[in-house]
Amino acid sequence: MDNQMLNELKERYNIVFQDVTLLEQALTHSSYVNEHRNMQLSDNERLEFLGDAILELQVSDYLYRQYPELPEGKLTRLRSAIVREDSLSKFAKECHFDRYVMLGKGEENSGGRNRAALLCDLFESFLGALYLDQGYEAALRFVQQVIFPRVAAGDFLREMDHKTRLQEVLQRSGDVTIEYRLTNEEGPAHERIFTTEVYVDGRLIGSGQGKSKKLAEQDAAANALASLES
Amino acid sequence: MDNQMLNELKERYNIVFQDVTLLEQALTHSSYVNEHRNMQLSDNERLEFLGDAILELQVSDYLYRQYPELPEGKLTRLRSAIVREDSLSKFAKECHFDRYVMLGKGEENSGGRNRAALLCDLFESFLGALYLDQGYEAALRFVQQVIFPRVAAGDFLREMDHKTRLQEVLQRSGDVTIEYRLTNEEGPAHERIFTTEVYVDGRLIGSGQGKSKKLAEQDAAANALASLES
Repeated sequence: MDNQMLNELKERYNIVFQDVTLLEQALTHSSYVNEHRNMQLSDNERLEFLGDAILELQVSDYLYRQYPELPEGKLTRLRSAIVREDSLSKFAKECHFDRYVMLGKGEENSGGRNRAALLCDLFESFLGALYLDQGYEAALRFVQQVIFPRVAAGDFLREMDHKTRLQEVLQRSGDVTIEYRLTNEEGPAHERIFTTEVYVDGRLIGSGQGKSKKLAEQDAAANALASLES
Repeated sequence: MDNQMLNELKERYNIVFQDVTLLEQALTHSSYVNEHRNMQLSDNERLEFLGDAILELQVSDYLYRQYPELPEGKLTRLRSAIVREDSLSKFAKECHFDRYVMLGKGEENSGGRNRAALLCDLFESFLGALYLDQGYEAALRFVQQVIFPRVAAGDFLREMDHKTRLQEVLQRSGDVTIEYRLTNEEGPAHERIFTTEVYVDGRLIGSGQGKSKKLAEQDAAANALASLES
């Protein structure tokens, strides 16, 4: 096992594996096993199976409690955005797992070390190994360090519709009242245009137009978000 | 809350909810909420979101430990068979959740009480409520009572290929050696037929034929299973 990896895990995440072979297995890609059959190694695929389910519950539990007003459909969308391949592959890189993964030569030469699917699996297999070595709470502490701050910062809210996202952004700093006011309606019945303004605690923060009230509100929220974030 | 439900939960599963409103919410279908808007009820959909992830981890962890030799692909198939709609809807009925779910009239009249999707959601929302009320271990104890005995009895192994299934069935009562012996090969090259026998600890338990060695082994395993189970 690479000592640098062990040091990094300890320094950055305060993680010390009791059973280092579990960590080694988490970092062993099947391509490496196939090229070293005489070594009787195990690849990380079973750990990934386990880690996937651990992450799913930890993220679900976090979202459930953090967003008490979000309906199931939006919770599901937000969860998908967090646990999907390209998100997890970025987290794996951030944790430097790409530096330590053991690959076969073919996989290495074809750029496997930067392949999102491989890195995503790596993140999950690491989590599976940590869970087996130290239990659910230890795996949770790691996810709390690596993933939840990003969720809290709103990194995944872009998956949401504009009104939901505006609400989450505004409520980060406490309870606020958001109100949409229809201010104009014009044009013939089949081509009606609605204009809506959005207010936070009575203060105008954006306006928008659309072919229905709903679309006008979404447009107003999008414009408010754009001006808040600019 | 129906007292009979509370009694049943206590008697059959030794479960006593501290916060009965969680249990009520788990049993409240959205159709009921829609027909009783004045009551300001919450439906069970957010609990189902949570319960789904709890079950996924509990089943994954169980399979990971119970089947140390099963590769990831087969673990995934087995897990899917256990947590899929028609399996969970049967577990929900077994727990009598169908008797206590609160439905709107429309849903009731269209047979919602027997609809697999609704019952599956109900099982998951119950698990979510139990988890929030009493934690992961309490939810696990319930799953250990209701689901795992069925997995251990082999109810879901029919999802596996015949060789895997035969292995799991035979190894339930301890370690055994399973051997496939090619006993015959005949016919022209493009229409070759292979005959294979399968032995457990040296005893012949089945034989089969096929157009490849692999297919002949699967056939032998299927025949061995059929005679073991008859």
